[in-house]
Amino acid sequence: MTKCTRCKRRDAVYLRAYSGEKLCGKCFMKSIEDKVRTTIAKHDMLKTNDKIAVAVSGGKDSVTLLHILTKLEKDFPNAELCAVTVDEGIKGYRDEAITLAEDNCHKLGVQHCVTSFRTLFDIELDDLVTLLAKKAKGKTAGLSPCSYCGVLRRRALNVAARKAEADKLALAHNLDDETQTILLNIIHGDPLRLARVKPVLSGKHEKFTSRVKPFCEIPEKEIAFYAYLKEIPFQSVPCPYATTALRNDVRNMLNCMEERHAGTKFTILRSVEKVQPALEAAAGVTVLRECRICGEPTAKEVCKPCQMLRELGVS
Amino acid sequence: MTKCTRCKRRDAVYLRAYSGEKLCGKCFMKSIEDKVRTTIAKHDMLKTNDKIAVAVSGGKDSVTLLHILTKLEKDFPNAELCAVTVDEGIKGYRDEAITLAEDNCHKLGVQHCVTSFRTLFDIELDDLVTLLAKKAKGKTAGLSPCSYCGVLRRRALNVAARKAEADKLALAHNLDDETQTILLNIIHGDPLRLARVKPVLSGKHEKFTSRVKPFCEIPEKEIAFYAYLKEIPFQSVPCPYATTALRNDVRNMLNCMEERHAGTKFTILRSVEKVQPALEAAAGVTVLRECRICGEPTAKEVCKPCQMLRELGVS
Repeated sequence: MTKCTRCKRRDAVYLRAYSGEKLCGKCFMKSIEDKVRTTIAKHDMLKTNDKIAVAVSGGKDSVTLLHILTKLEKDFPNAELCAVTVDEGIKGYRDEAITLAEDNCHKLGVQHCVTSFRTLFDIELDDLVTLLAKKAKGKTAGLSPCSYCGVLRRRALNVAARKAEADKLALAHNLDDETQTILLNIIHGDPLRLARVKPVLSGKHEKFTSRVKPFCEIPEKEIAFYAYLKEIPFQSVPCPYATTALRNDVRNMLNCMEERHAGTKFTILRSVEKVQPALEAAAGVTVLRECRICGEPTAKEVCKPCQMLRELGVS
Repeated sequence: MTKCTRCKRRDAVYLRAYSGEKLCGKCFMKSIEDKVRTTIAKHDMLKTNDKIAVAVSGGKDSVTLLHILTKLEKDFPNAELCAVTVDEGIKGYRDEAITLAEDNCHKLGVQHCVTSFRTLFDIELDDLVTLLAKKAKGKTAGLSPCSYCGVLRRRALNVAARKAEADKLALAHNLDDETQTILLNIIHGDPLRLARVKPVLSGKHEKFTSRVKPFCEIPEKEIAFYAYLKEIPFQSVPCPYATTALRNDVRNMLNCMEERHAGTKFTILRSVEKVQPALEAAAGVTVLRECRICGEPTAKEVCKPCQMLRELGVS
């Protein structure tokens, strides 16, 4: 067996192609935790006395983030952690995920707050999908369920983080998510949105909780391997409404490129970091105000969730 | 047989997925010529009394561009056309291409000017590759032969166009070339170079001939089909030094995406058009001056070709 490049003692179980390292389980896990620590420090994501709300869906990435942040938090006695979960209302899918999120929180001794589309928007995603299908009948396809769900979930997380009196909302977006989003923005003809693919998204409004992404430089497969080594229980079935055909193609393509040219995903992330100042300067400062209808923070007169729900005739 | 969507009479021979059209040979060819005309007008590429130097390597794209521009030029009696070819000095490859370029020019009645790396830089690409191989021995790989060749060829084309007293230098870069270059710039971590992937590159220096790309919105396979229908003779063997592994991967990936989501390449081009003003504003104005060594236009004290040749100990 090949020995670990770091400890030189234990057998290597993971080959990290982009660095050339061969790592044993222990050194691999430490490398991930160190990377999260470095990412947090580099981007000044968290303060030592922050209350952090971790967005936990119950999936691999978010549950692993909760485990790692709980571990790192032990060094900061003034920091505080809680988990927030959004129940979108997807029968036979979300219930299991919530239980898994709950179990993980319980095991880690972390307070768990669950909010739902039903409570916040008076509709569940299952009903919204039925509504969309009815509307789409005979017409060209409009936005996908994922687009609606994404907008509403981001809102729900912000409300939940605010209710938990959190200073930061931690999201488990990984390197793969970020690079996929980058290419999708370019492929969709929405390149100005690249300005928002950032490790830290600060809202200049008291009702907006700043979002941080401590996993943004960690490849998805390394999170999966960490979860496997730690035996972290998570939900692994995909959402029944996931129809992100284009994102899947971009994912496959990026994995293929990474396989052949290790480090590609990192370089893409760096590329966007380089152009962001220019894009931000071009876009100008977005001033957030309160939505005329719901009072939540928004850049426009009526916020996106209210606009979507109105168009669907829900509110 | 399915009839042509445009003339409704002749049999369709080409399915254009991104528009849904089915075209006969005649309507297809007209559509390409129209598209070139529109692209030239949209980007204000040419004036009615311009002298245009077409960069003709002898390959499919450049020879086809020469054919189409010769055809379009007939409507502009004050415009003038010539072809410029660069002989890089690649034995058993470039000679055939030059003959093919020559034959096409002769057939079209276009003046043909050939220049060479030997004349301009006192070295042929074959020798340069040997030199690079020697230098690389035992070290990590440096720049590829293509990088050197590209820099020297661009210089040679500018010198040739200036000698021909051309107002514009027309390049046959197609939609595939442009979108590949866009993604490569991002993947290479060079996103600020996106500002230079443009249909028109004007040099603010009297020694720099503005470059225009009338094919920038035409997919490669449509140029190939046009050349096939017109029975245009061109060189089809690839350069023996072509080692653009990453570009090939990006090409395959883009073709795969285009196949599954028709129009992807166009959207990528539009995306970059949208961010270019911001990138240009960030980069500031590049002032060209004359290279201290060779007197050619450059943004730095010593131009890139002189710098490369010096590093190789050639000049």
